[in-house]
Amino acid sequence: MFIRFITTGGTIDKVYFDAMSQFEVGESPISNILAEGRVSFDYNVVSMFQKDSLEITDEDREALKGFIENDEAKAFVITHGTDTMAKTAAVLRSIRGKTMVLTGSLNPARFKTTDAVFNIGMAIGAVQSLQPGVYIAMNGQVFAEGEVVKNRAENRFEKVISNPSRHSS
Amino acid sequence: MFIRFITTGGTIDKVYFDAMSQFEVGESPISNILAEGRVSFDYNVVSMFQKDSLEITDEDREALKGFIENDEAKAFVITHGTDTMAKTAAVLRSIRGKTMVLTGSLNPARFKTTDAVFNIGMAIGAVQSLQPGVYIAMNGQVFAEGEVVKNRAENRFEKVISNPSRHSS
Amino acid sequence: MFIRFITTGGTIDKVYFDAMSQFEVGESPISNILAEGRVSFDYNVVSMFQKDSLEITDEDREALKGFIENDEAKAFVITHGTDTMAKTAAVLRSIRGKTMVLTGSLNPARFKTTDAVFNIGMAIGAVQSLQPGVYIAMNGQVFAEGEVVKNRAENRFEKVISNPSRHSS
Amino acid sequence: MFIRFITTGGTIDKVYFDAMSQFEVGESPISNILAEGRVSFDYNVVSMFQKDSLEITDEDREALKGFIENDEAKAFVITHGTDTMAKTAAVLRSIRGKTMVLTGSLNPARFKTTDAVFNIGMAIGAVQSLQPGVYIAMNGQVFAEGEVVKNRAENRFEKVISNPSRHSS
Repeated sequence: MFIRFITTGGTIDKVYFDAMSQFEVGESPISNILAEGRVSFDYNVVSMFQKDSLEITDEDREALKGFIENDEAKAFVITHGTDTMAKTAAVLRSIRGKTMVLTGSLNPARFKTTDAVFNIGMAIGAVQSLQPGVYIAMNGQVFAEGEVVKNRAENRFEKVISNPSRHSS
Repeated sequence: MFIRFITTGGTIDKVYFDAMSQFEVGESPISNILAEGRVSFDYNVVSMFQKDSLEITDEDREALKGFIENDEAKAFVITHGTDTMAKTAAVLRSIRGKTMVLTGSLNPARFKTTDAVFNIGMAIGAVQSLQPGVYIAMNGQVFAEGEVVKNRAENRFEKVISNPSRHSS
Repeated sequence: MFIRFITTGGTIDKVYFDAMSQFEVGESPISNILAEGRVSFDYNVVSMFQKDSLEITDEDREALKGFIENDEAKAFVITHGTDTMAKTAAVLRSIRGKTMVLTGSLNPARFKTTDAVFNIGMAIGAVQSLQPGVYIAMNGQVFAEGEVVKNRAENRFEKVISNPSRHSS
Repeated sequence: MFIRFITTGGTIDKVYFDAMSQFEVGESPISNILAEGRVSFDYNVVSMFQKDSLEITDEDREALKGFIENDEAKAFVITHGTDTMAKTAAVLRSIRGKTMVLTGSLNPARFKTTDAVFNIGMAIGAVQSLQPGVYIAMNGQVFAEGEVVKNRAENRFEKVISNPSRHSS
């Protein structure tokens, strides 16, 4: 088993810079999380961007898609900011023969209390168990791409009740 | 989605009792882990035993099997000590129409550094993604029952290279 | 033994608000830290302000000074942002008969890796051991007020080598 | 400022060995705690024993005393199991001109929830603030040697109400 991890920034990667009293996207904590999970499979981590997901552009998404299409790996876990995770997932929809799971966290991985470790574990459990396709793993659930939205008021991901726009596409 | 969690003890549940300078099986940390993972699915936690897995008897395993067979739930995450996890998985093999994922941890969940949170996340990602059957989720991998052993010297789970005894059964 | 804790904000109190992808001053973590330290002395926590220390005004400092002067307590631990901690300490200099220790942290208390717990412990150890006066406890050291500055480039507190401005006052 | 840290084992140092499902004294976590506290003073850590404090012998205590007497350092933080911490403190009583603070923890330092970081911070705050002598820093309080006992039922350190045996010595 081989998993390619692609990091793009988002809350999961945020660190605190005292000098500016600000919270910015920093190094991905994913290697530490994999060490803590004592994983024994082969993997590689690629840092694609370090951005708040609201700053990820259409060009960025196409670059991500191109990278995955041209990569020999079959299983991908992509860490991503939560605000536009569903949008990026939609762009990856047309990729065939690969299983891609997007995840992230609502609290930074560097916090004492964070959903980051749980979510990375969940994404890894899902990516090796699912058929090819694009999925979002958040809030304990693995959603198929297109059937999930972020409820910003409640700060959680939810299943879309009806999705007529997709049926018409 | 509904997941039934069944706890049976093992390292994942261990606490430290200073009075005896000993480490014993205590309350399951699973509810805290699910809260940290901000899960939004329905679930219930059943504490079946609180035992080191070396102390789990054949009767215990039959009781666990009976409980699952008679339960209306379809998805189960079972936390278990690592030493006999594979043995318990084998007993559950004959159950039909349910997805059962066993997991645990090599370091207690109450430790700063533990694989417990990661493993529970992985088991949850797997249980909702897999076909019915019995699986073991440890060391970042989801193994089908019968194809995995604990390498005690290395303190990790590994795929069985060949398994002739099983073919003959 | 009775200790009055006064919180004023600063990095130690910072929380992360995903909605704004920002890091703001939140509830003080001091009660959690005292519980973790299993303290058995009597204490009380007063939240005076919730500010970045660069936003603390001269009026705020006078209000803090007035509060301490009129308080029956003799031992104070004051949590404070690091940037103007020394300035606030200087304002408290003229208070007689009370031991006041200012501390804070360079990383938020809610981080996995933080100096907050250590620093609160250090301040508590110092406040009950020292003669009346104003002190700053940071980076493992208890400095007398007036003999310490924050080296912003290195992000740590250091002893002032010479302090002629003070001798002239 | 220079502080000599001497580790002797006890709960603070305990690690978990899955192979035996046991909890044993391991490497001292003190260097990690000092890094987390971002200390900037000079220090050195000496591992004297790795024992449950009930196993520390009179010879061990004399060896510890001899080490401190012959050491050029003036400030010592000694980590120690809690059960016989007061007994060891009594043996060190006759050392002159040095400040010695004993501390430890009621939960192992490797636990998510532990008093170890707080206690090490407290001991460091105390050792640089106190007159020469022997002290015990536990449960948020710095006790002079001879005026403190461990209340085993409550699992905490308390001030001795009266101590006639000491007055007669």
